[in-house]
Amino acid sequence: MRILVVNPNTSEEMTRDIGEEARRYARPGTEIEVTSPAWGPRSIEGHYEEEIAAVAALETIRERAADFDGVVIACYGDPGLFAAREISPVPVVGIAEASMLMACTVAHRFSIVTVLPRVRPMLEDMVRMHGLEERCASVRTTPLSVLDCERDPTAAEREIVRAARAAIAEDGAEAICLGCAGMGPLDKAVQAQVEVPVLDGVACAVKLVESLVDYGLSTSRVAAFKEPEPKEFVNYPSVGVKLPA
Amino acid sequence: MRILVVNPNTSEEMTRDIGEEARRYARPGTEIEVTSPAWGPRSIEGHYEEEIAAVAALETIRERAADFDGVVIACYGDPGLFAAREISPVPVVGIAEASMLMACTVAHRFSIVTVLPRVRPMLEDMVRMHGLEERCASVRTTPLSVLDCERDPTAAEREIVRAARAAIAEDGAEAICLGCAGMGPLDKAVQAQVEVPVLDGVACAVKLVESLVDYGLSTSRVAAFKEPEPKEFVNYPSVGVKLPA
Amino acid sequence: MRILVVNPNTSEEMTRDIGEEARRYARPGTEIEVTSPAWGPRSIEGHYEEEIAAVAALETIRERAADFDGVVIACYGDPGLFAAREISPVPVVGIAEASMLMACTVAHRFSIVTVLPRVRPMLEDMVRMHGLEERCASVRTTPLSVLDCERDPTAAEREIVRAARAAIAEDGAEAICLGCAGMGPLDKAVQAQVEVPVLDGVACAVKLVESLVDYGLSTSRVAAFKEPEPKEFVNYPSVGVKLPA
Amino acid sequence: MRILVVNPNTSEEMTRDIGEEARRYARPGTEIEVTSPAWGPRSIEGHYEEEIAAVAALETIRERAADFDGVVIACYGDPGLFAAREISPVPVVGIAEASMLMACTVAHRFSIVTVLPRVRPMLEDMVRMHGLEERCASVRTTPLSVLDCERDPTAAEREIVRAARAAIAEDGAEAICLGCAGMGPLDKAVQAQVEVPVLDGVACAVKLVESLVDYGLSTSRVAAFKEPEPKEFVNYPSVGVKLPA
Amino acid sequence: MRILVVNPNTSEEMTRDIGEEARRYARPGTEIEVTSPAWGPRSIEGHYEEEIAAVAALETIRERAADFDGVVIACYGDPGLFAAREISPVPVVGIAEASMLMACTVAHRFSIVTVLPRVRPMLEDMVRMHGLEERCASVRTTPLSVLDCERDPTAAEREIVRAARAAIAEDGAEAICLGCAGMGPLDKAVQAQVEVPVLDGVACAVKLVESLVDYGLSTSRVAAFKEPEPKEFVNYPSVGVKLPA
Amino acid sequence: MRILVVNPNTSEEMTRDIGEEARRYARPGTEIEVTSPAWGPRSIEGHYEEEIAAVAALETIRERAADFDGVVIACYGDPGLFAAREISPVPVVGIAEASMLMACTVAHRFSIVTVLPRVRPMLEDMVRMHGLEERCASVRTTPLSVLDCERDPTAAEREIVRAARAAIAEDGAEAICLGCAGMGPLDKAVQAQVEVPVLDGVACAVKLVESLVDYGLSTSRVAAFKEPEPKEFVNYPSVGVKLPA
Repeated sequence: MRILVVNPNTSEEMTRDIGEEARRYARPGTEIEVTSPAWGPRSIEGHYEEEIAAVAALETIRERAADFDGVVIACYGDPGLFAAREISPVPVVGIAEASMLMACTVAHRFSIVTVLPRVRPMLEDMVRMHGLEERCASVRTTPLSVLDCERDPTAAEREIVRAARAAIAEDGAEAICLGCAGMGPLDKAVQAQVEVPVLDGVACAVKLVESLVDYGLSTSRVAAFKEPEPKEFVNYPSVGVKLPA
Repeated sequence: MRILVVNPNTSEEMTRDIGEEARRYARPGTEIEVTSPAWGPRSIEGHYEEEIAAVAALETIRERAADFDGVVIACYGDPGLFAAREISPVPVVGIAEASMLMACTVAHRFSIVTVLPRVRPMLEDMVRMHGLEERCASVRTTPLSVLDCERDPTAAEREIVRAARAAIAEDGAEAICLGCAGMGPLDKAVQAQVEVPVLDGVACAVKLVESLVDYGLSTSRVAAFKEPEPKEFVNYPSVGVKLPA
Repeated sequence: MRILVVNPNTSEEMTRDIGEEARRYARPGTEIEVTSPAWGPRSIEGHYEEEIAAVAALETIRERAADFDGVVIACYGDPGLFAAREISPVPVVGIAEASMLMACTVAHRFSIVTVLPRVRPMLEDMVRMHGLEERCASVRTTPLSVLDCERDPTAAEREIVRAARAAIAEDGAEAICLGCAGMGPLDKAVQAQVEVPVLDGVACAVKLVESLVDYGLSTSRVAAFKEPEPKEFVNYPSVGVKLPA
Repeated sequence: MRILVVNPNTSEEMTRDIGEEARRYARPGTEIEVTSPAWGPRSIEGHYEEEIAAVAALETIRERAADFDGVVIACYGDPGLFAAREISPVPVVGIAEASMLMACTVAHRFSIVTVLPRVRPMLEDMVRMHGLEERCASVRTTPLSVLDCERDPTAAEREIVRAARAAIAEDGAEAICLGCAGMGPLDKAVQAQVEVPVLDGVACAVKLVESLVDYGLSTSRVAAFKEPEPKEFVNYPSVGVKLPA
Repeated sequence: MRILVVNPNTSEEMTRDIGEEARRYARPGTEIEVTSPAWGPRSIEGHYEEEIAAVAALETIRERAADFDGVVIACYGDPGLFAAREISPVPVVGIAEASMLMACTVAHRFSIVTVLPRVRPMLEDMVRMHGLEERCASVRTTPLSVLDCERDPTAAEREIVRAARAAIAEDGAEAICLGCAGMGPLDKAVQAQVEVPVLDGVACAVKLVESLVDYGLSTSRVAAFKEPEPKEFVNYPSVGVKLPA
Repeated sequence: MRILVVNPNTSEEMTRDIGEEARRYARPGTEIEVTSPAWGPRSIEGHYEEEIAAVAALETIRERAADFDGVVIACYGDPGLFAAREISPVPVVGIAEASMLMACTVAHRFSIVTVLPRVRPMLEDMVRMHGLEERCASVRTTPLSVLDCERDPTAAEREIVRAARAAIAEDGAEAICLGCAGMGPLDKAVQAQVEVPVLDGVACAVKLVESLVDYGLSTSRVAAFKEPEPKEFVNYPSVGVKLPA
């Protein structure tokens, strides 16, 4: 089985770390290819960057998804996820939804621990968009930027543990979803300290794609994720997606 | 007062019609400039096209918003709205939110009458994203594509009236929001037939921008719509937005 | 355009201040007439007073609305709003709904800062009645009575700023709605201190009525706001409302 | 135990019938006094009439509640209920809330069968105001006016049964709340035909007041239903309510 | 009237106290019989114990309900309630639902004060299962085990008062539901200290059963609580319930 | 990896079929053991049977879970799931939650197609208990009993397809969850006809357990699923569960 993991951020170190995390929990027969778009922001910390990065990631998915059995979008806002489902012939899973859905099987409620305070409304909207607000105890932020997680993992771990403990003690969290792909490699280290399940979305998304492929499930084409209507694009490559008959 | 109306669809006829609708209800001192991006899909009927068009519209807003008192995004999914708020120094209003907020003042509950069935989940998500699901009786679709509204307004009016009557009779709708910018010029003709308020988002958004400017309100910068963090973009112009001090 | 602003509180100073606030943000061609009922409580700080004041305000609206293009109910619980829509031939906007709907265009979530703690449940119900609970971060109270806002605006401003800052820091508020008509004149002074948009409902309601009139919208008569059925009233003037054919 | 049942409608036949219904299910030691205000609409079929009738009923309650052990407001919109709790020294129960709360103990979900279609939004708001929307399967209307229930009970019964059957078959209703005090005397006749529990709010409210009195519970005074603040009323009797210390 | 009160906990002291509480507020003609199952956990403080105790209580109800006019399940999670409705020929009321429904008539919102922190998610689920989350301000826990309430009522009262005061001051509670049958006898003592209504579910359930019987209501058999289908049980007595024709 | 699949129904044919379905989608290295309790109802079609079967299944899990890497509860109401999490040292997944969580990755909204109409309220409650009501378009019933699915799979398939098509056409379903373990073997046959993803919970739960084990996640012990408190059980084996330190 081959899975394409797309990091919408154009930071190479982060992309490399995501690949390692994905391979760590993939099973033996799963081949992981990790990539990031040829253009776009180094990191995503707001709506504007998310919009740009979504289109950049969609270009990658449009060109490459057909060569894989499934696709993972590796940024914790699931940028471009619903659009990707329209144009990909294979299943697409976002790391935010993946971590939350998996958390539902080991915890009554989970909290998301993420980067800068400014992303809290954006992630709260994302939780609502996935219809999971009843299971989400809170979105907790830290002073960390996305790239801080790469630059100083020790400091990042300390901040994540602090926010996670607050979520457990004050918000009723029983599991912690790491709210940034860059935090993924810290999952087990944080878990050892906070004593509740800690979930990295990259690992969870790889497991869910493997599960979908094993069970032979693919994206529903009946309404929300119907392939795009044939139409003209001005100064932009038309979709030209080949979906299975 | 100068308002920039951006049609994220790259259809010229539609852009022209949107401009006429905007000017029809703008007050005397308001100058309307209508434009559409230099690239992107002719029309938006799904998530993929919406993502592409959002970025194209954001480029326009990034370059031109500072010369206006307010911006209207004229596509009934409010593509790029939250990102636009981050990068625009002046208020930005989406036509979907505008029509729904105005409908709240004349009706207990409204329905949205829109284009093809495939957009229903997308618009239901949009309603939820604006937190207005308690006021929305239903999203009703028609067999119309976006460009059908331009091509054959008489047929479009007939389909809209049929869907609107169903919403009133079966869903408890007390007002109708026209769920596509291309439907806007039909507002009063439809209203004459269905006998409840019919709201075009372009007209509503122009009135709301005028209101915001009159009252001296601008986008909150404290969290969700904070200007983007300074950062590197790969192969893409960095934001370089100048926000007021 | 002529707008009737009805203050359901029978306090003259407050009525006068409301008129000034309304005129400050009305556009040049808009004529504001402000009035308060001939009877009822000096101020509204609970359900009982709100019920009495609603009927007193309805008498004023019943008699005078036909001479205006729109009506504003200027008390932050929107007393009698839905009943007023039934009997008024012209649009009616409440200041609570107006401030909240406008806040939705400049902020992800807003908080309401209001008077005494006892009104919190009443205002939380009001937010729910308008279906806007997803957009409302919190209702924050102060030690201020309604008339304190008139008596000592300096002290009032200090209390409002304190509560607003708490809402921003602790509840996720990105805009502040002033939850009492008497607080309106402090809008810009508070805004200067808290650095997020601050909305007075009187100003917002005037702008929304202007917008409705410009766009030619009037109250839906199909169900919730249908004119009253013809019927006998005992010892009370029957409605005798003349609605347009 | 003495219970005051206030019919906010000024129709004498209806008031008399309500009294009979209340006495039918009161237990031996309970004395029922039924009354209606000295002024106001013959019947309540909209927001305007409800506002007027609420104040008329509140005058009755203000004057007479202290002589009783509990009060019932006998109109299926619970007009003035929260205000009455502020000014009454004894518990006050509305017939809508009473029928819904009791229905929760015998059915998974209930529907309300009521009068004219125009009241549906008003009753849906009322259900939401009581926070019971998850238990309410639907509000079903009939062609009946309030006074039709008195005038032709046979026809009324037929219409109620028809609407109730539709609610059971199509909406998942497992019990029927009769959504008008005038329908109360038909409870057992309707129940015999529809074969699910049928609840009249007058009967339910009497039982709940008896229960509250037996258990020694009275209205919470800590916030929502705190007695009114001392204040001046213009051209209207001030409250002058004596609440127990 | 005869009411069977079943304590699903097999603690004799608690069962005896529940009986006394039930008789204290039953009216003269009501005969209370209190019992507990022949097997099962001494106390219920988690999902596992609740499942075991539910079946044990259902055996008691299956055998004995037909000899009574109504049944009360006296554990604050309402274990087995919906199943009991299927097999009991007479109405069944749980003490959690009873206290919450009654609280709705005297308070805008209530909080539940209960035993150990571990039961909070379980009780929050229970509130949601009854559809009453809009009326529930919070679930507050104490360091008390179920049996601590019996062992040291003075200490228990102190802990309950502390948690209740926090709920009133911080969560907006206007009434307190005692979240454990063992806390019931402390109702009036706690109420005297916290000055809002304090409700014990046993007392409330007895009053609701009396009310249901007086008004002639019984469990709806149309869907959720239909009697079990006839079927084979392996190594377990088949239901053999006789429901009224 | 070893997974214990517990069928709470005591029907041997069904248990055997569940085992085959589980093995069909388990990956090569996964060993499936399927079992059903020594006592309890042949099939589960209501609350009463669910309560009995939950305890029977819990006995099996209590005795055997420690010998496996994960447990699946194979009845579409997830009976005893939360209790099982308290007493099992390894992860426990219910088939209802599994099918719904997996459906979220391939569809905007799913519907559940299940057995007799009487279980609809029970399954609607179950969806709410998992907090997934926003993703569930509807629960659709058929005239099938649980054992009908075994007895006549051809007729069962026909009924399931009919209900699934109605859910897709009328309710907005984009995927179908088979709402009974006995329906599982029909998944691909139904999918071929309805052309949207069809999910059997047994297959999904096996994949989720494999995923949890691969990623090293286990049940959170911090609150909802804390191991039971040590305590006496009367006439019933005490828990005696050994949880990992």
